[in-house]
Amino acid sequence: MNIGIIGLGTMGMGAALNLHRKGHRVTGCDLRPAARAALVAAGAAAVERPDALPEGLDAVLILVVNATQEEAVLFGPEGCVPRLPAGAVAICSATVAPEFARLLEARLNAAGLLMLDAPVSGGRAGAEAGSMTVMASGAPEAFERAGPALEAIAAKVWRLGSSAGIGSTVKMVNQLLAGTHIAVAAEALALGIRAGADPKVLYDVICSSAGNSWMWQNRVPHILAGDDTPASAVNIFVKDLGIVLDQARALAFPAPLAATAHQLFLGAAALGNGAKDDAFVIRVWEALTGIALPGKT
Amino acid sequence: MNIGIIGLGTMGMGAALNLHRKGHRVTGCDLRPAARAALVAAGAAAVERPDALPEGLDAVLILVVNATQEEAVLFGPEGCVPRLPAGAVAICSATVAPEFARLLEARLNAAGLLMLDAPVSGGRAGAEAGSMTVMASGAPEAFERAGPALEAIAAKVWRLGSSAGIGSTVKMVNQLLAGTHIAVAAEALALGIRAGADPKVLYDVICSSAGNSWMWQNRVPHILAGDDTPASAVNIFVKDLGIVLDQARALAFPAPLAATAHQLFLGAAALGNGAKDDAFVIRVWEALTGIALPGKT
Repeated sequence: MNIGIIGLGTMGMGAALNLHRKGHRVTGCDLRPAARAALVAAGAAAVERPDALPEGLDAVLILVVNATQEEAVLFGPEGCVPRLPAGAVAICSATVAPEFARLLEARLNAAGLLMLDAPVSGGRAGAEAGSMTVMASGAPEAFERAGPALEAIAAKVWRLGSSAGIGSTVKMVNQLLAGTHIAVAAEALALGIRAGADPKVLYDVICSSAGNSWMWQNRVPHILAGDDTPASAVNIFVKDLGIVLDQARALAFPAPLAATAHQLFLGAAALGNGAKDDAFVIRVWEALTGIALPGKT
Repeated sequence: MNIGIIGLGTMGMGAALNLHRKGHRVTGCDLRPAARAALVAAGAAAVERPDALPEGLDAVLILVVNATQEEAVLFGPEGCVPRLPAGAVAICSATVAPEFARLLEARLNAAGLLMLDAPVSGGRAGAEAGSMTVMASGAPEAFERAGPALEAIAAKVWRLGSSAGIGSTVKMVNQLLAGTHIAVAAEALALGIRAGADPKVLYDVICSSAGNSWMWQNRVPHILAGDDTPASAVNIFVKDLGIVLDQARALAFPAPLAATAHQLFLGAAALGNGAKDDAFVIRVWEALTGIALPGKT
């Protein structure tokens, strides 16, 4: 496939490299020169702005941060839609509100393009290994067109429905769980430390017990290592749990655990950790209780 | 080993059958005739009261519901302590406050007995398969004495320290996570249903995504099947999160997620579901939002 990847962050770079390795013709797009240079060094092409992507693309894979950016790279003044041939597919993988995904599909269809509402999960490791989970919905032709690209980046592609919206709905539920699991991992680890448990031993025990979660296993090591370099930042869950709560409110649906977790991520951001790794939501408890976090010299 | 098992519920029965199968001399103890009959049918012995356990036991394994019962079966009017020979070990596996475990150890030591503070995790499946996780602390002699019994019931025995307390501390952290994970699984599934997702598909997608947890994987199938027969009941988490919050309060430690989850289990109990499977904390959202739960005819 001749494919453009817009957004060369953790997820986009992983996807771009996998697509390139598997023989697709890849052009990345990112404002940051370092990201473009890294992709070019791997042998693929890169451009700064979406309206500089090559003509005749089969697909664009969009792995930007939020709905505003997704709208901008498609329909903004520097957007790529005018350069896409009829029948090309926009694989939209940012975490957005289901309603936004539905509106975007209508606009893309009106422009003669296909859309896949295709949020992803799997983190940096999944992106690098080409083993992400894709939660996708869209027209059968969109799935067909996007097939080889999805195969290159994902271990599992879920076909959740024949129009945009349900893909983002399922991703929203995943983010509710993922964000709350990170926050409660921090709460539990902090309580264990306060009560005198060894954090490393506690980590190992929980990994083999009923209290385990994907996030406990994946994020607690960041805390144990004292490494707050963001694999995914606190601000991502400020945003994603915000989307969850906006949607829940629109449905008059009470979500007390997601709301509490959101407040904890906001607390971590208020403490100046918005751009730090999301596991460092634990700094809320460090600030409140004075516990000593591991990994400090 | 010549061992008594006090409490033949889900966990105790699984442990007793595994000990019997692996050649130990097993006497179960439970007030309920049906539980005793089941153990006797499997070829082991059973008695109604702890003071009717055979003399000369090497160990008693206590798998009762709470601290009050644990105290009663050891030191109450019908307790077994007077019948235990010097140097026998009490393997105390109920979920209790760390402070209670420390006091119990002092009393048992004063009576010439050893104690292992040895809460377990792994659920019904782990108990039946003899593959529980044991989070244990106690004197080296207590570990030595209890060794063959633990080997028969557990896939993994954690040695967390040389006196009682830290075993129960680690279990408390596990229960904080486990309880909150069940409540947020219910919150997320309910929101997904409300937003139009197919609950069975949602379950499968999350199992392969970053939102997964041991509890999501283990408990959501109960909801999908509409089967509220308790593997573990709502009231167990009313109790266990209560222990977590009492301990946290004693440490002046704020635990907003555990506190919110506790309120949700209390809500489910208020609705009349205290004795139902803990996954049916989801009935809080059923009651509030009128969503249709799966598995109903």
